[in-house]
Parts: sequence; structure tokens; C-alpha cells
Amino acid sequence: MKILKVDMSNLTVKEEDATKYKRLGGRALTSKLIHDEVPATCHTLGANNKLIFATGLLTGSGASSADRYSIGAKSPLTGGIKESNAGGISGLTLGKLGVKALVFENVRDDFKIVHLSKDGVKFDDATPILGKDLSEAATWLRDAYGSHVAVWLIGVAGEQRMNLSAIAGQDKDGHPTRYNGRGGLGAVAGSKGIKAIVLDATGVEKNRPNDKELFKASLKQYHGWLMETPGTAKIYPELGTAGLVETTNSLGALPTRNFSIGSMEGYKNISGETLRETILERGGEGTPTHACMPGCIIRCSNVFSDENGKRVTGPIEYENIGLLGSNLDISNFDDIAELNRLCNEYGIDTIETGGALGVLMAQNVLSFGDAKGAIAALKEVKTGSPLGRIIGSGAEVIGKIYGEPHVPTAKGQTMPAYDPRAIKGLGVTYATSPMGADHTAGQTIRAQLNHHSAEGQVEASKNAQTANTILDNLGMCMFSAGAIQGRWDIVADLVSAYLGDKFTGEDIINIANETLKVEHAFNRKAGFTKANDKLPDYFYEEENKASNTVFDVPQEELETIGVQRHDL
Amino acid sequence: MKILKVDMSNLTVKEEDATKYKRLGGRALTSKLIHDEVPATCHTLGANNKLIFATGLLTGSGASSADRYSIGAKSPLTGGIKESNAGGISGLTLGKLGVKALVFENVRDDFKIVHLSKDGVKFDDATPILGKDLSEAATWLRDAYGSHVAVWLIGVAGEQRMNLSAIAGQDKDGHPTRYNGRGGLGAVAGSKGIKAIVLDATGVEKNRPNDKELFKASLKQYHGWLMETPGTAKIYPELGTAGLVETTNSLGALPTRNFSIGSMEGYKNISGETLRETILERGGEGTPTHACMPGCIIRCSNVFSDENGKRVTGPIEYENIGLLGSNLDISNFDDIAELNRLCNEYGIDTIETGGALGVLMAQNVLSFGDAKGAIAALKEVKTGSPLGRIIGSGAEVIGKIYGEPHVPTAKGQTMPAYDPRAIKGLGVTYATSPMGADHTAGQTIRAQLNHHSAEGQVEASKNAQTANTILDNLGMCMFSAGAIQGRWDIVADLVSAYLGDKFTGEDIINIANETLKVEHAFNRKAGFTKANDKLPDYFYEEENKASNTVFDVPQEELETIGVQRHDL
Repeated sequence: MKILKVDMSNLTVKEEDATKYKRLGGRALTSKLIHDEVPATCHTLGANNKLIFATGLLTGSGASSADRYSIGAKSPLTGGIKESNAGGISGLTLGKLGVKALVFENVRDDFKIVHLSKDGVKFDDATPILGKDLSEAATWLRDAYGSHVAVWLIGVAGEQRMNLSAIAGQDKDGHPTRYNGRGGLGAVAGSKGIKAIVLDATGVEKNRPNDKELFKASLKQYHGWLMETPGTAKIYPELGTAGLVETTNSLGALPTRNFSIGSMEGYKNISGETLRETILERGGEGTPTHACMPGCIIRCSNVFSDENGKRVTGPIEYENIGLLGSNLDISNFDDIAELNRLCNEYGIDTIETGGALGVLMAQNVLSFGDAKGAIAALKEVKTGSPLGRIIGSGAEVIGKIYGEPHVPTAKGQTMPAYDPRAIKGLGVTYATSPMGADHTAGQTIRAQLNHHSAEGQVEASKNAQTANTILDNLGMCMFSAGAIQGRWDIVADLVSAYLGDKFTGEDIINIANETLKVEHAFNRKAGFTKANDKLPDYFYEEENKASNTVFDVPQEELETIGVQRHDL
Repeated sequence: MKILKVDMSNLTVKEEDATKYKRLGGRALTSKLIHDEVPATCHTLGANNKLIFATGLLTGSGASSADRYSIGAKSPLTGGIKESNAGGISGLTLGKLGVKALVFENVRDDFKIVHLSKDGVKFDDATPILGKDLSEAATWLRDAYGSHVAVWLIGVAGEQRMNLSAIAGQDKDGHPTRYNGRGGLGAVAGSKGIKAIVLDATGVEKNRPNDKELFKASLKQYHGWLMETPGTAKIYPELGTAGLVETTNSLGALPTRNFSIGSMEGYKNISGETLRETILERGGEGTPTHACMPGCIIRCSNVFSDENGKRVTGPIEYENIGLLGSNLDISNFDDIAELNRLCNEYGIDTIETGGALGVLMAQNVLSFGDAKGAIAALKEVKTGSPLGRIIGSGAEVIGKIYGEPHVPTAKGQTMPAYDPRAIKGLGVTYATSPMGADHTAGQTIRAQLNHHSAEGQVEASKNAQTANTILDNLGMCMFSAGAIQGRWDIVADLVSAYLGDKFTGEDIINIANETLKVEHAFNRKAGFTKANDKLPDYFYEEENKASNTVFDVPQEELETIGVQRHDL
């Protein structure tokens, strides 16, 4: 395995041996490289930032739900270290090419298509696909490079270096809808002139596990656990993540009207059950269950079709429903699907987009419940009009533009669809994770405790942050957590067998904690302090009337696991 | 003397004895109160921030150029502590009313006119002047409350809580054109529902010096020095601050085209000499010299008139020429005057406005040199259109909206009109002052050293920061510095004689250093670290071709006088 370093200013490529990083995958690797190689105070869109793609330790091994990869950089949105990961087949293909990490350095003004194959790296002019919707650009790329390639892409938002721009990867059916959504990484790609990355693994030998027998045995054990886990075996394939709507609404945690309250009158219209029924009723190209990665047992994804059965978008996930639906007081799947589709076409993060539109609604620039208005406004992201630019800057910046104190962000990033007053463990994660507000950085919703109480939340978040980091390092989907959390020894066997390097369960945990440590260290150097380990004032001061709670986890407790965390 | 605390949420007033603060004036007092009473991590536009007006120790004493006052708050622009001071007669009138500090707490949604007189505080509905230009609003207030009152006002920008909004005070002729410009304090006033403050000192006894003889003698000495100082005696009355254009252009420090270079081809068209000649030639209401405060010997201000001799705006200062002129590649006084006039009518900081327009020009949203385009865009601040909101958010936020790394700010605030690569002492001040980029926080342009060299700049800035803070505490104009810097004993005599409390020169210095200490302490609690003690990357990396220099004062040296500064 190797690390490829691409200098985008002069389009030269250096190959480095990756042996010293052999025990680090995904987030562990992106964060380590950023910590070691990126000056922490640098401008995120300047020459000193780096954009790093890294495969998880298990990516490509054949283990279910384990083909994820990480993209890292210093984030334009948070100003801190960022890792965002996704499934699909692009990371998998990078792994097939023997590339452990693909590192982009420097900046350029025009846009290139970066093409990787066994013959090396070449750079093509990206002009033909600039300004295009992602579905169109992806079709163009398949036509140009063959339907067997995998791609990464940025959209019009990334071209314009917008804060909410993301990097899209490809699912197993060729749709560029698997998103490294968070942190504005599309803008970093845009600043470096990377419009697309085309990955062609033709003629490359398949990776094989080092210890076939052990691998097979561990895999069987892991897959068995997956099949036994209720979420994995039944809820996700049936309802997808949208199954959460009922849960969070009943907890008072479903963000509604710019996170002003945690439940919505019409929530049944946007529940997982309604989504499934709608998709099944319409038939055609829609499907309520879909695997983004080949061989995934969980299949939490879906495809949403219109009344004629024609594909509109996919997937519609819980986060999209919460942020583009209830948070905007929109309770109609066709409207949510259209907003979701536009996000996918422009290459933008649905969570950040929902946060942005929510603050604009709180400011009466748009109106709660007015889906038409929201759709029209969102289309301006493409034209780059002043309003489009405002939306593209994300919720935190919009708060500054409009002088609005009710902005549901932590470290500059919009909260995912869980009101932190009603699921307080997630509030702790938002406040203390090196990533800012991010449920995938420490999801506590399944922790066995009273989510409305302040008690035990710091411990729950701490454990969840470690567990999520483990998964991010391995390339495993967080939905496998129900099956493997706490069973790290067998996961270690899987990794050992695949890589031929001995890992214990403790090693797996230690590497994750070391990752958190370098991330906090980078953030400290970038200027973060315990003052950043908090939520916006209004979550402490204004009651969520659905849960009858404020966020009241004591600040001193938060700080024990925040940026000052040296216990790791 | 007393402190008045006004709770804007319920319009109640508490009076507190100010004895314990008797040795603190102006910035020393606002910063002390903010440090002690404002939670450092609070939202700047929320209920926990405070907006504080405080008179200098000498304000109202009759000493020349010493009627200044400070306004302080946690700044929406920098996120740190902020003090901005101005001359005119409004602070003077507050002092006459026996109010040492006027503290506004809490927030409200509608707007009030706060009326102070010897009979106490009353609150009137501000609806009649909402949305009006400041000249019109000031006329309305004089008509409503009498022409003998003094006022503070926010404009349409402050009503909209924009980051570049300022608070305008009144000059001795009734024009609301003396600006507490920096830090977005108008937005804080706007969040608290303060549209105007009317100060009526009718029937109030005049403050008299405690020790008449000593006061008279010290005053004579001080005024004598003022008259002997070349800047004070000749340059300022003749050319105003605009006299600096020649100096900075020749140093390569005149910001040109978004601080990309430090000299401008047509600089002679915007020089102090040309300004004076133009004003004199046109005659009518224009005047090249004007005192903002009654009795000021320096008279650096001016009034600019159009070709028919009709007043357009005043004053046109060096900063306005640098930011609204050369920084935008505009070299025509009528255009600069029109931009200046609009800033004064909308209640916005000229420096931040020039910074904002400059970044938009760098992004080709506007065009360098296109004054008509800049004027038309600026008018959108009034309407609050998306573009108007973008301009109103200030240069730093615009950089985030457009993904532009060339943003001439420090701690979120636009640099005044000195390229830090060519006057490196000011670069040190920008990077290390608790106020962010602000020449009045540590002006080194008159320090006797090579401004292009890194040598000695930290020491020069450190001394200047203390000197400027002394002046801010006393209520003295920084243009008196040439006469009194280092002669603190006689200044101490002046203060002692006026207040009847013994001050030595050392006391004066110590109070200033204590002020800097509480400011840095507040900023540390607010989350500032040494990572904030720097300039944007491009000042280190891209040469200013007019001075052939980059900013190269070593970071470790900067940090010795920055936010970590415990030496005070």
C-alpha cells in the first residue's frame, strides 16, 4: 500500500511508502496526516491545507458494511480538523488501486479531472462538466471513462468554495449520491481545482486476506451478529434511518422550526412508515431498501420515486427528513425529496442546508412551511446569486449575516436532527467532539439512559466518541455498531486476518483514542479552547417545549472530554 | 458620579454609586465592567451581552482634545472585548449629567429612544425615525427634543444588527457624524432595541476642577505642548488626517485593491493637499479644518462640499480615503465623499465598509475602480437585500461567503489603511491587540524606526498599545499623543487636579496596562489563543510589491505581547 501525494499547483505526483501508517486507516490516517502536515492556523482554502482521502482498514475486505473511507482536511466550516466518511464504491476502488491515502496539496484556479488507474495519475480538463448537476456530470464521466469506473465529484457549490459543499462518491449503481457531507470539504476540493476524481481499477489484482481461515471464521461471526441485531436485521432494511422519526418525535428531539421545539404536529406524514408505504405504493424505480455498498447486509438506503414511479432522489434519510422537513416545518415527502434532490445535484450537505434554510426562515427571509419558497431559494445556490451565496455559507455564517442568535450549530457546524435538549448525550457530543456538531462522531441515542436527564451523558458520549472513531478507522458503517460494540476482540481478529498484522481489541480501542487525541491537539493549535466546548446560549436558556428540558449538562463536565482532553 | 444600568427588556433603571470606579475612565471602565459582568462566551446579540458608554477621566474638563468617551461590549465582529471611542459632544453631555457609565442590559425586539436628563431616564417609541438616514433622524430628534440636546444614534445597519454597524455621536454643530465605528457596536445597540439616546443637560451644574490652580497650570503646560507640536499646530489643521496619504503611499503602505499592494498610481488625486485645495476652491459650506469637540486646538476634521459648495459629508479622513478610495482603486474625492456620506447616513464603519467592498471586488462581484457600482451596492445596505446583508456582514464574513483567502482582517476586523507588510509595527498591533486590527489600539507610524524591517516592531507596538490605552482611559484624542507621550506626570497632575484624587504618571501607565490585562483575560475566557495572534496567511506569503516586503515579525515575538500576555 502506498500514499499518493498530488501537488495540484503543478500537477505532479509523489508516491510514498505507507508502511509506517499500516495500522492506521480511514479517520485515524487522515487525522494523523493533517495533524502532522497541515499548519493548524492556515487558511482552509489556501495552499497550506491538504485534502486527504483514506480507506478504512477493512475497506475492500468483503466484510459487510465495511467499505467506507474517510476524507479529511482542516474544515472551512469549523476551522478545526475534519473527517467525513461515506460508503458506496469509490473508497473501495481507491483501496483496490493499492492507495491507502490520496493526499492533495496546494491550490489552483482552473478545474481538473484527476484520473487514477494502475498506470498512474493523469489530469484532464474539467471544463465540460463545470456548472453541471451531479447526475449529469456523473453520466458524462461514465461516458468518457467507461461505466466500470468509480468517481468522486464536487458540484457547483464546491466549485464556488461554499461552506456547505460536500464531496460526493458513487453508490454501487453509479449514482453520485454517497456523501462525505460534513465540514465543507467540497470547498477545499474546489480551492485545489479538483472537480472530479475518476478511479479505474481495471487490471488490478483483488486484495486477499492474509490469513484466509481466520478471516473467514471472524467474518462469519461478525455477519452472524449483524443478522441477529434487530436494527440491522429488520428496522433498517424496512424503514431505513427514517424509522427514527417516531422515536425522536416522541422524545421531543425532532428538530422543528429552526430547532425551536422538538416535535412536529404532522410528523406522521414524514415517518419511516409513511416513507415506506409511499415508495411501495408508487412502485416503479423506487425501493424502500437499498445497499450503498456491494454485499451490505443492512441496506438502510432507499430510492424515492414520484407519482409516476420515476426516480426522484435517493436516499431520503432521517437526517434529511429532520433538517429539510420538520426543521423547516415541511411535512410532505415530495417537497423533502425535491430539496434532497437539489442538494444531491449541487453537491451540498443536506444537514447544513437544512440548518441554513432554517435560520433564514427564523429571520423571515423565507417562511416556515413554504416548501416552494425554500426550493426556489435553494436553486440560487447554483447561480451563485447573493442569496445563493448566503445559503451556501451555512447556518453559522448566516447567523452572523442576519444577527440571529438562534443558530443550531456547534463549532460552526449545523446540528444533525437531534435536539440536544432532548437527547443530551448528543448535546455533549456536539459540544465536545473535535468535529463539531455531528451525530456520527458520538451517537448516544441507543445508550440505555434517560435522554432527558443530564446524568451519565458525558460518560455515554465519551464511550460513543471512541466507538464511532473505531468504526471510522476500520471503514465500518456506524449501523454495524449494534452488532459489534464491545466485541472488539473479534473485530481485531478480522483486521489481523485481513492485514496480517496482529491487532488486539485493546489495540483497536487505543488507536481510536489516539486519533481523538491528535484531533484535539490539532484543534488546540488551531485556536480551540474550552470556550468552544459549548452549545449556543439558547439551548441552555430556552426550554424545548416538547421535552420540557433545557441543556443542562454542567460545563465543567463537558470540558473533561473536550478540547482539553488529555486523558486519552 | 454614578453608573446607570438600564434593563432594556423591561425598561427599568438602576443607579449605582461609581466611587469604586473613580480612577477608571473611558476604556478602562468599559473593559473592566465587561470583564467583570459579561459572560465571555455569550452570544454578542443575546441578553447576556452589555453595551456600555463611559466618559474619559478628563471628559468635560475643558482640556483640549479630551472630551472623548468609550463604548464597549463583546463585539459581534471580533467575538472578543471591544472598545471604540469618539469625540464630538455626546460623551461630554453624558459627563455633564453626572453619569460615569451608562450600561445597557438585556434585549428587546422593538426600538426605543432613551432620553436622559436631570429628571432621570424615560423611553420613547422610536418608530418615527426607524429606517431613516441619520441626518434626517438627527433633525427629527432635535425638532422633538430641542436643538440643545446631544444624541447617539444607530442607523439602518444597526437596526438590522449588521456587523459593520456603528454608533454615531454628534459633533458640536449637531451633525451625527462622530463615530464609534469599530467592532459592530451598532448591532449590539440594535439587539437591545436602542435606536437613539438623547442627552439633555439642561439645568445641570457645570463640572469644575477640584484643584483650580493646579488644573490651570497643568492645562497651560499641556496646551503649550500641543501648540508646539508640528502635527497638531500645522499639519492636522491644514490637511487633516488626509495628510497621511503621501506618507503611506511612499512607504508602500497605502492599501490598494484589497490590500494587494501598498501604493496607487493616482494617489495624488486623493492626497491631503488635493483635498484641501478642492475644499477651498469650492468654498460654500466646505471647510478644510473643523473641530469636532468644542475648544479643540487640533481641528483635524473637515467638511466636504460639492461643486456648488453644498455640504456632502464630513469628515473625509485618511482611513476613509484609504479604505473607500485606494483600496477600491477609486481616486476621485467626489466618489469617496459619496461613499463616505452613505456610510454616515446608514450608520456604518467606513473602514469595515471599505474592507467589505474590497473583498467583493477581489471576487468580481463588484469591480475595482467602479465607483458607481460600489455606490449602488452600498445602497443595498439600507434595503437589507441579500447583497446589502452580505456587505453589512463585513470583510471577514464575506471571505467565508465567497471562499476568498485574501481578506485583510485580524480577529475578524478589517485593517485600517496601513498595509502591515509596510508598517510592520501596525501589523504587530493588528495581530496582538485585544481589539483586532485597529490603528487606534497601538499606532506606530510615528515611531522612529524602519517600518519595513521586522526589528523593534514588537517593542514599538507594545509601547503604542499602552500609550493608546492611556489616552482612551483619559478621554484624550490620539492626536494629542505627539504632545504628551512620555510626559505622563503632567497629565497625571491634570487628572489629579480635575478629579481631586492623586494620580502619578506611573498610576496613569499602570491603569492602562491593567486595562490591557483585563481585556486579554476576557478574550482568553472568550476562547482566544495565540492562534488568533496572527495576520492572514497572504501577508506572510505574498509580497507587497510597493514595499517589496512580506510581514515577517516572528510569531514567537508576537505571542509575547498577545493574548497570553501576562507580563502586564
